[in-house]
Amino acid sequence: MDALQYVEKNYDNFVNTLKELLKIPSVSAQSKYKEDVKSCARFLAGQLEGIGLSPKIIETPGHPIVYCQYEDDPHAPTALIYGHYDVQPVDPLNLWKSPPFEPLIDNDIIYARGAADDKGQLLIHLKAVESFMKTQGQVPINFKMVLEGEEEVQSVNLDDFLEKNREMLKSDFAIISDTAMFGPDMPALTYSLRGIAIAEIEVTGPNRDLHSGSYGGAVPNPIHALAQIISACHDEDYRITIPGFYDDVLDIEEWERKAFKDLPFDENKFLKEVGSQGLVGEKGYSSLERRSARPTFEVNGIYGGYDGEGSKTIIPSWAGAKITMRLVPNQDPFKICDLLEKYLHSIKPEGITLRVKTGGGAKPALISKDNPIMQAAAQALKEGFGKDPYFIREGGSIPIVNIFKEVLGIDTILLGFCQPDCNAHSPNEWLALNDFKRGIISTINLYKKLAEMRM
Amino acid sequence: MDALQYVEKNYDNFVNTLKELLKIPSVSAQSKYKEDVKSCARFLAGQLEGIGLSPKIIETPGHPIVYCQYEDDPHAPTALIYGHYDVQPVDPLNLWKSPPFEPLIDNDIIYARGAADDKGQLLIHLKAVESFMKTQGQVPINFKMVLEGEEEVQSVNLDDFLEKNREMLKSDFAIISDTAMFGPDMPALTYSLRGIAIAEIEVTGPNRDLHSGSYGGAVPNPIHALAQIISACHDEDYRITIPGFYDDVLDIEEWERKAFKDLPFDENKFLKEVGSQGLVGEKGYSSLERRSARPTFEVNGIYGGYDGEGSKTIIPSWAGAKITMRLVPNQDPFKICDLLEKYLHSIKPEGITLRVKTGGGAKPALISKDNPIMQAAAQALKEGFGKDPYFIREGGSIPIVNIFKEVLGIDTILLGFCQPDCNAHSPNEWLALNDFKRGIISTINLYKKLAEMRM
Repeated sequence: MDALQYVEKNYDNFVNTLKELLKIPSVSAQSKYKEDVKSCARFLAGQLEGIGLSPKIIETPGHPIVYCQYEDDPHAPTALIYGHYDVQPVDPLNLWKSPPFEPLIDNDIIYARGAADDKGQLLIHLKAVESFMKTQGQVPINFKMVLEGEEEVQSVNLDDFLEKNREMLKSDFAIISDTAMFGPDMPALTYSLRGIAIAEIEVTGPNRDLHSGSYGGAVPNPIHALAQIISACHDEDYRITIPGFYDDVLDIEEWERKAFKDLPFDENKFLKEVGSQGLVGEKGYSSLERRSARPTFEVNGIYGGYDGEGSKTIIPSWAGAKITMRLVPNQDPFKICDLLEKYLHSIKPEGITLRVKTGGGAKPALISKDNPIMQAAAQALKEGFGKDPYFIREGGSIPIVNIFKEVLGIDTILLGFCQPDCNAHSPNEWLALNDFKRGIISTINLYKKLAEMRM
Repeated sequence: MDALQYVEKNYDNFVNTLKELLKIPSVSAQSKYKEDVKSCARFLAGQLEGIGLSPKIIETPGHPIVYCQYEDDPHAPTALIYGHYDVQPVDPLNLWKSPPFEPLIDNDIIYARGAADDKGQLLIHLKAVESFMKTQGQVPINFKMVLEGEEEVQSVNLDDFLEKNREMLKSDFAIISDTAMFGPDMPALTYSLRGIAIAEIEVTGPNRDLHSGSYGGAVPNPIHALAQIISACHDEDYRITIPGFYDDVLDIEEWERKAFKDLPFDENKFLKEVGSQGLVGEKGYSSLERRSARPTFEVNGIYGGYDGEGSKTIIPSWAGAKITMRLVPNQDPFKICDLLEKYLHSIKPEGITLRVKTGGGAKPALISKDNPIMQAAAQALKEGFGKDPYFIREGGSIPIVNIFKEVLGIDTILLGFCQPDCNAHSPNEWLALNDFKRGIISTINLYKKLAEMRM
């Protein structure tokens, strides 16, 4: 019996294990669940022991990390397999159709907190490993499995763990299953993530709020200045005007533009979902390209002066705005922050004081689709799902991918099996059991293909 | 003995009456002082009775109005003499150097809540009337005296009183002593007030806050749109860009520009007081002109998206701003609101929904310095203070002046005797007793001169 046959034979058991795993309320943000988080770690360690491996539960100042190392063939590649077993809080509880920690299967879909994010997906790897071990007595690749208990609380202790264990964690690449497919029956590989650069502006005019009758007309109004500054950051084509901003931007390649066009994306449906009067963005690019392959300058918040009922006739003393810029390969958040700061000071209106506080950010990520590990993943998905995967870019950042790159120097394969509307972080989180199964099959195929890459 | 001699002889008594009046905590905004407000009305009625007049205490749904009518010579002009006997709350109490309702005289200055705004100033008129009555047995003009108890709570019941008593209140002009001199030993007559037009903008983008990673770049950000709209309301010369905005603006006349230049105003001192990095305003005008004789467009508050600690990566669903425009003669607030609304919709950026809510406002006021009543007031001040008064424009609005114009159809002489830094509405409110005295003398002179204008 080979690994794939093992899956067929043991599928019902796999689903039962998934149910058991989902019953444990491992909410990392709420201290009342501290023991449950720990018992979830023990459950996973128990699973790995049952497979015949030797996991360790590594304590941190917060929740523990389950770590399991497997090294068999020194010429086989080594994957860092990452997942997280902690989950988001469940409130508002009244919006759940079934209790969040009493998994319900309905129409081949399993509903429970953590079904998609990320217990269901990390179990896919455990079951792939099990399928090899139980049939071949070995896994074709080496791996360092890191199962974190604090992803939903900003991985507060993970950096430290990685930094301190660089040598132990040395790998050729990472694999994370914590993203979504492009849609039902549409397997996907995420090959690029946007980075982010963070800034805050504060504009000060008079030394106190002034009466707009007695002073108005002669004194700089910081809100006007702030509006002017913000307006000056885009041109008419919605391009960002910061000099040098686009210097390091990798243009979208021809094949990508075609791939973007081929994605089953309905602009009208998107507009309807967003609910705005229209869509706007950088001239010359489609909405999908703008959302993931082009950088942005976005004001996330603005404030200053009176915001209560009725009117208050003041010239406020100050006004401020919070800004984030999404970056694409090969922009650097620190360089971009510097360019922003320089530019804003260069356009500062008369009479006001401008303070720009930059907060660094995260680098964008890109892995070539031609990279052998991506090719292996694409092949594996094709065999698992019976169709070619979409190569997609994700508009947001996944901090852990940046950390792996920065601390361990490795790229990450993002191989996701939940659906985009799986209600992660919301009530009625779900995972299609068919995707769970095809996920395990794809993962088995992936390990096999990666094993062919001799190191 | 004539009225002026009476002042000299009874000055100490006048100061004692002022002290008694200031001892009554007639705070209209706080219900615990309701009885005190009423007893203040009775105190004033008693004063008027003592002079030999027949005042009435007229109840309203709030605090009473003390009304006193004097009609002697049908050919003499009739003045509506307005003042208010209610005062602002006193907090923060710990910043007062002496208790707010225990008047303290130090260095010929009296400190107490209401000393300047407006008890001290209304008493000037009572004492002028008294000086005539006690020496001549008559006052040379007719008057309708309206002493309000709700000025500090937006004169909520005054409109109704004026509307219902148009006939009774019929007068040739109004006199209000509730403004400031230009500075120490600088008597002033305010001949113009700015009006105001009020609006609120709300810009809506997506139907909810969106993740700026997954959506950013393709969806309209209402903060950007709002900033663009606000920026488009001034040009580089700081002129307001709303088409038609300046159409009805009365240009500053040549004599006024000269008068503005002659005012003892130190631009550097003003900048220092304001505390901004510099001063800005409409090209071609001085700060004083900009503050009082030119219209403005001022954003008083702006809000939208995230304003908490750190950053939140959203495209907010909406953003808004509060706007007031100061108007000069002969702009009309309703017309200006219409122009604004039309303009904003004409420049509305793509993709967003714009809602402009206008709230009307108040008309500007102008009384020619050549008007005989202004000339009389100027002469009276010259005699009272031994120097020509400054003719000044006030940048704010005085709603009561508009109400008198609209309901009773009369102009108002604004004859103020406190100093600009008298701490009205703040701790340690004060009035110079020398100004109190010169105020009474000037008012006596004013009544005499007005009497010469036969009707």
